[in-house]
Amino acid sequence: MSEVRVIQINESVFAENDRTAELLRNRMTDQGTLFLNFMSSPGSGKTTTLVAIINRLKDRLNIGEMDVDIESSLDAQRVADLTGIRSLQIHNGGLCHIDADMTARALLEYDTKGLDLLILENIGNLVCPAEFDTGAHKNITILSVPEGDDKPLKYPLMYTVSDVVLINKMDALDYFDFDLDKAKERILALNPRAILFPISAKTGDGLEAVCDWILDEVTAVKSDT
Amino acid sequence: MSEVRVIQINESVFAENDRTAELLRNRMTDQGTLFLNFMSSPGSGKTTTLVAIINRLKDRLNIGEMDVDIESSLDAQRVADLTGIRSLQIHNGGLCHIDADMTARALLEYDTKGLDLLILENIGNLVCPAEFDTGAHKNITILSVPEGDDKPLKYPLMYTVSDVVLINKMDALDYFDFDLDKAKERILALNPRAILFPISAKTGDGLEAVCDWILDEVTAVKSDT
Repeated sequence: MSEVRVIQINESVFAENDRTAELLRNRMTDQGTLFLNFMSSPGSGKTTTLVAIINRLKDRLNIGEMDVDIESSLDAQRVADLTGIRSLQIHNGGLCHIDADMTARALLEYDTKGLDLLILENIGNLVCPAEFDTGAHKNITILSVPEGDDKPLKYPLMYTVSDVVLINKMDALDYFDFDLDKAKERILALNPRAILFPISAKTGDGLEAVCDWILDEVTAVKSDT
Repeated sequence: MSEVRVIQINESVFAENDRTAELLRNRMTDQGTLFLNFMSSPGSGKTTTLVAIINRLKDRLNIGEMDVDIESSLDAQRVADLTGIRSLQIHNGGLCHIDADMTARALLEYDTKGLDLLILENIGNLVCPAEFDTGAHKNITILSVPEGDDKPLKYPLMYTVSDVVLINKMDALDYFDFDLDKAKERILALNPRAILFPISAKTGDGLEAVCDWILDEVTAVKSDT
């Protein structure tokens, strides 16, 4: 009897996406590039944080960055202007997320060979981006103090899928009703392995620890090569 | 020749939604209930603002409130506890918006007869909720100072579809790089008819003007009855 090839066509969009994401992740591992996906609400300070991190690491690592927005190119321009690294703006045409296929499509126009670190700044949204694996090695969510310590209760999936949570705008802590211990407790209840870094992208406080974590992860990916 | 009934089956989900929304809006107008849809990023202060508005108006208007969240019931509970009005929590099962069908479904379990004002607190998101007419008479977006004055540039549809924009957390203006004139200019470039109210839900500043606007709109809906 001849061998018959079976393809499954009734799988969910998430299963298809997960497979593309795994292929992307493996490719990044093979070429020794750590791929990080940054997510958050609009206005939590993603771009400011990324600029600060990139400027602290760009002499030690070869870094690339991709920004997702609906139709503006402000973020990629800001990252390029303020850091001098190569930045790509992805317009996702009004969707509330970027998935692995869109990331793969973007990488056809953005050469990542030789990069030690590839950063994806996802669209500002706590719902949809959490549902789609982008192919990144690690997911990082930024929660900013003015948003409130109840966000993990209201957007649990985001915190469940995040390996790292940066608690940003710590310089404004005295100004808002934000209980840092409660926020930590709520994040860890959803994801006990989450690593938390309180930071202020504005003052720079706490960013050294984040950069050390990134450097360790780059070393880990390169040792898997 | 017999008459043939034609049905259109290739219409977009948006066209279907718009029709349901129009029916809902007409029903609300017929019963003299002003229906307002509040949208914003997560953490911009929707619930705090609504509690403050409801407490200022509840002696003059019969008010109902519905909250949309993925799976938590925190917001509806908070509104009910802090205002004493009837509040319904809608769990949308992980979607990033609520549409007119979902609103109509919720109204099967929430009697709005006799209400002067029905408030919908949409899910915290600047992308998807802007795309779906909920059947509300007016859309209100909250932009909070810590989010930054660039949000209208990055989420233009939200500001295009909003009749009113509340610029919240004005008490924190000295603390953040937020240019109020630039924010206003960017919103009005997208929607020249938008009405803007700078407010602080925390201190109460600016809320009287918002309440006066709501009272005028209630009168307008009742005169259309």
